[in-house]
Amino acid sequence: MDCHNQVYSMFSTEFFSSEINRWLSEIEYPSKPEGLYEPIAYMLSGGGKRLRPTLMCAVSESLGHSFDFVRQQAIAIEMFHNFTLLHDDVMDNADIRHGKPTVHRKWNIPTAILSGDTMLTMASGFMSDCGSDIREDVVDIFNKTAIEIYEGQQYDMNFESRQDVTADEYLDMIRLKTAVLLGCSCKIGAIAAKASPMIQDLFYQYGVKLGMAFQLRDDYLDTFGDPELFGKQIGGDILNDKKTFLSLQAWEKNFNAMLGATSLSESSEKIMKVRDLYVALGLDKMCLDLISDYTKDAIRQLQSVGLSASDMEFFENVALSAVKRKS
Amino acid sequence: MDCHNQVYSMFSTEFFSSEINRWLSEIEYPSKPEGLYEPIAYMLSGGGKRLRPTLMCAVSESLGHSFDFVRQQAIAIEMFHNFTLLHDDVMDNADIRHGKPTVHRKWNIPTAILSGDTMLTMASGFMSDCGSDIREDVVDIFNKTAIEIYEGQQYDMNFESRQDVTADEYLDMIRLKTAVLLGCSCKIGAIAAKASPMIQDLFYQYGVKLGMAFQLRDDYLDTFGDPELFGKQIGGDILNDKKTFLSLQAWEKNFNAMLGATSLSESSEKIMKVRDLYVALGLDKMCLDLISDYTKDAIRQLQSVGLSASDMEFFENVALSAVKRKS
Repeated sequence: MDCHNQVYSMFSTEFFSSEINRWLSEIEYPSKPEGLYEPIAYMLSGGGKRLRPTLMCAVSESLGHSFDFVRQQAIAIEMFHNFTLLHDDVMDNADIRHGKPTVHRKWNIPTAILSGDTMLTMASGFMSDCGSDIREDVVDIFNKTAIEIYEGQQYDMNFESRQDVTADEYLDMIRLKTAVLLGCSCKIGAIAAKASPMIQDLFYQYGVKLGMAFQLRDDYLDTFGDPELFGKQIGGDILNDKKTFLSLQAWEKNFNAMLGATSLSESSEKIMKVRDLYVALGLDKMCLDLISDYTKDAIRQLQSVGLSASDMEFFENVALSAVKRKS
Repeated sequence: MDCHNQVYSMFSTEFFSSEINRWLSEIEYPSKPEGLYEPIAYMLSGGGKRLRPTLMCAVSESLGHSFDFVRQQAIAIEMFHNFTLLHDDVMDNADIRHGKPTVHRKWNIPTAILSGDTMLTMASGFMSDCGSDIREDVVDIFNKTAIEIYEGQQYDMNFESRQDVTADEYLDMIRLKTAVLLGCSCKIGAIAAKASPMIQDLFYQYGVKLGMAFQLRDDYLDTFGDPELFGKQIGGDILNDKKTFLSLQAWEKNFNAMLGATSLSESSEKIMKVRDLYVALGLDKMCLDLISDYTKDAIRQLQSVGLSASDMEFFENVALSAVKRKS
């Protein structure tokens, strides 16, 4: 692979996310009809790490294909991701996203639905704006991934009214709802760079494992994070009886203790008792070990790709940030 | 054009719609997760004329390209159309569609949103499942049209709270919300048949004018239809103070008389008085004339295409059905 010869050290996640933010800010929206495009610009100005397009750009660049060349697909994946957040917020009746009112709160539900639909079609448009030699592969993985994400969201909603969800089912749900989009982002970067199907798949697997690690870290921080650093209240999942890896394992391991702890009516006592039970059952360590395993597995995928040392370091650091991040 | 030589008389709208219904019934949905795919099958079994895929099939066939070859795009356009109906029903808070409960009534709003999203992505997948030589053109007109339809829906929603909507603005709204999808359906049939851009555009214009005629006929029948044949209550638009071509013209022509008639509290009296006012202002005839003009204009588009006599007759009959239909 000729990518060994590249000088790559100028690139960082900060560099990519700032380029991506510039691209997003340069999208020109029609001025009419009033109410359709304002929520889209609002969603995309909401911040976030831009992790998905950053991965796509980094993969493309690491394979010798300038990150600039995946600009349209990077915009597409971030537009799509924000569409899923917008519609999920309606479905979950969420009030706040990135510290600001959600679209259906600031506007209304019809606007949130319609602006979301517009984002999905705009994302499809940006995604297919590429060379005809790669269009079919790019569009296929994008559509396949989108369907998986809807399936993940449906499983997540179905879990709410089910009492027999297993930890394995939960892991499969977050794979669909969260992880495959990171895999898809990486794969599209590799497709654009005309990498072999094997290399495409290694990057896909890297992204999926990374996504698992990130989501599990999210769940871990919601219970064990530092309130100062995490940015939102600790214990929300426990208070809302959310099914997570931690809670499902606890129910499996000690049903009666969970029944006692989760039925406490006083909020801070409930959070404390459930958390103590998790620790007593060794679930905090078990969760960290699982995150670490996914992270190592992600990194292992890339060892046979033949990346330069600096590129390999970049992807390792992204993966390790899932283990270390506090917020 | 070699299509002059074709024998086409075996084809009818009934033939195409029955083929399309068969195609739709053959779609295989995953069995899991529960609740995601059932509403999609439910929407697509809801009936309707299948006008959009019928037009696509007929255009393709008339240009010497077997209708079978646009199967995936025909499924896509009907799937997309039903996605817009599904999400519109949520936005409009509608209870009944094709005589059955709407999806958000039979299931719930989150299911309606998520199944709709799935239909849109499935439609994109079916649409791009074509030869790479036409994929870019097909996907471009499809995405462009989808955005126009969302804009039309947004205009329609904005009209509800505006008091200064003109009849011209209304015509532009129904062009976006309804007519362009018929134009898009025809154009994709022509693209698939490798017709020249000029022929593609003539079929597009045919579809758009036809769509205008159909929507205006819908509005006309809602007020002047035969209740026995129309299948739903006559006067719904009047009762709900819906902005239509008829009502907007009436407000423009005699504001005070409309103010009197629309403020009547008794339903049947309100419908009768508003309808009488429309007739006194000559709006029933004006609406019929406009429908007739659009129909003739639609047919005129195809005169230079060089279709066989029987094909021309098919497209004329579809257009004339907009003028004559009672339901």
